[in-house]
Amino acid sequence: MAEAVIKSRVIGIDVSFETTTIAIVDIRGRVIDKTDFPTTDYPNINGFVNKLCETTIQLSENNGGYLSIRSVGMSVPSGNYLTGCIENSPNMPWKGVIPLAAMLRDRLGLAVAITNDSKAIAMGEFTFGSAHGMRDFAVITIGHGLGCGYYSHGKLCNGASGFCGELGHTCVIPNGRKCECGLEGCLETYVAEKGILRTAKEMMAESDEPSLMRDIDPTVITPKLIVGCCEKGDKMAIEVFKKTGTLLGVALANFASIVDPEAIIITGGIAKAGHWLFDPLWESFDSHIFHNIRGKVKLLESTLNGRERDVLGASVLAWNVKEYSLFK
Amino acid sequence: MAEAVIKSRVIGIDVSFETTTIAIVDIRGRVIDKTDFPTTDYPNINGFVNKLCETTIQLSENNGGYLSIRSVGMSVPSGNYLTGCIENSPNMPWKGVIPLAAMLRDRLGLAVAITNDSKAIAMGEFTFGSAHGMRDFAVITIGHGLGCGYYSHGKLCNGASGFCGELGHTCVIPNGRKCECGLEGCLETYVAEKGILRTAKEMMAESDEPSLMRDIDPTVITPKLIVGCCEKGDKMAIEVFKKTGTLLGVALANFASIVDPEAIIITGGIAKAGHWLFDPLWESFDSHIFHNIRGKVKLLESTLNGRERDVLGASVLAWNVKEYSLFK
Repeated sequence: MAEAVIKSRVIGIDVSFETTTIAIVDIRGRVIDKTDFPTTDYPNINGFVNKLCETTIQLSENNGGYLSIRSVGMSVPSGNYLTGCIENSPNMPWKGVIPLAAMLRDRLGLAVAITNDSKAIAMGEFTFGSAHGMRDFAVITIGHGLGCGYYSHGKLCNGASGFCGELGHTCVIPNGRKCECGLEGCLETYVAEKGILRTAKEMMAESDEPSLMRDIDPTVITPKLIVGCCEKGDKMAIEVFKKTGTLLGVALANFASIVDPEAIIITGGIAKAGHWLFDPLWESFDSHIFHNIRGKVKLLESTLNGRERDVLGASVLAWNVKEYSLFK
Repeated sequence: MAEAVIKSRVIGIDVSFETTTIAIVDIRGRVIDKTDFPTTDYPNINGFVNKLCETTIQLSENNGGYLSIRSVGMSVPSGNYLTGCIENSPNMPWKGVIPLAAMLRDRLGLAVAITNDSKAIAMGEFTFGSAHGMRDFAVITIGHGLGCGYYSHGKLCNGASGFCGELGHTCVIPNGRKCECGLEGCLETYVAEKGILRTAKEMMAESDEPSLMRDIDPTVITPKLIVGCCEKGDKMAIEVFKKTGTLLGVALANFASIVDPEAIIITGGIAKAGHWLFDPLWESFDSHIFHNIRGKVKLLESTLNGRERDVLGASVLAWNVKEYSLFK
């Protein structure tokens, strides 16, 4: 018989391109302790899993040991909840299909579930954030790529094969920019980080108009630096976000016409561009949305912040996994 | 106390632009009896409701009376399940917001639920048709307009305000053709009935290339007549469906990348164009879909036919309504 111990905590893990964060979280979403390491140091998946397990065990031991840990939830790019695998990530160094949940479960002796970053954040927003109390809503994360997680009937949608929400890879410009995923004209090639930089570079190349952006070394330019130019009144920099916001507005209006969410929560690094992005986005969204839902869909910011938001979502996933038992 | 009678039948009503069909259906989807009248004879909503109620009562009386009728399900363009209203239909003669479910309930003394045509067909396909046993799938109806109804977690999606699935009104060509809904570049302005005719007329105007389509009186040309030209090997007619299928393929690939359905069932008058439409559609769909779901989404035809399919869906809706009682 399994012993009767109250398992009052879970492990939430967020893997991003740059950093892997591991946290011990209680059922009310309090982060008891957390730690992180650079994802980029582990281009080999076995090395990554070793480091991840060692760090998780160490963090647990520093916080009273394994006994109180119920399960593990993990957010990772291209993570598929239905298979427990990372599947053909265009952005991560680990190629092909990797059974990450099983690899961790076997090493840790805990139930492990994985999903992708946007779906995990949607779970966090549903339980602890802006979407609390909503049954139909979507989270859009814009950073390195563009991800989307959404709820229908108060449940997270996974789709038939675990890959719903690939809004970033819908075609917005036929025969448009080449995407890392192999398709052309994908939304994320225009509105995620690299896409915005590409728009800026194209605009600088296409005219002789003066711009503060021209003073920035093209090898270190970032969306944040372009926002800095906007704040100094730079016309071309403002136009970069206007183009980005307008295109994103059409894509989100199309998405809303399909899914009809109560709210769309926009988060991720690019959301920090603030009104430079959101003003044209809202105008375009409002003018492209189907008349029967016009004015009904809220565009919201996340009320959870940064790294904590990411591990919180993963911790909610952990509570939804059936507890692991050797006696199946 | 309500009397104990086994209510083993429902009324399924399908309202299309041309015809209103009323059927008595049992729980296994057998159509016991049905009748119809021209919708176009009733441009005034009160006249329409009078005719509909009289016909429904007559049909019930001809089939053993009201006692065995449990409830009424109704499929109508722009019908909103959540409000019971027809809301601002761009295609029907009745303008504004019409509380159709309440109007019928008050007249018939039966519980009444309404939804739109595509959602009703999705319910029919789920219960009696091609989608039986699926949890995540979509139905696309292409005729006068383009509609979409889809399931997630084995439940029909309504969205937050009852208007999910407006795929026909997503923008596929920025600043494109003007749509009856007020937007520009909507999918249905290209791939539904009028859109296909417009493409044909544009192609005839843009070149001097000979075509059998030029022999058809432009005031009576239909997609069916264009299919006839295709079958005689007419290059331009074939190109009309190639353009249509290619654009629809991109839109359905984008839809699938968002919703990740197990299958997309394509139905409605335009689906009768067969391989002239489906070959280019499939090619375009396959080359625009996100790699992780490529080859996983089935494109299926409906196994239910015509008018029966439409009332069947409405009858499934009827079973899902709580039975009406005067003692609430």
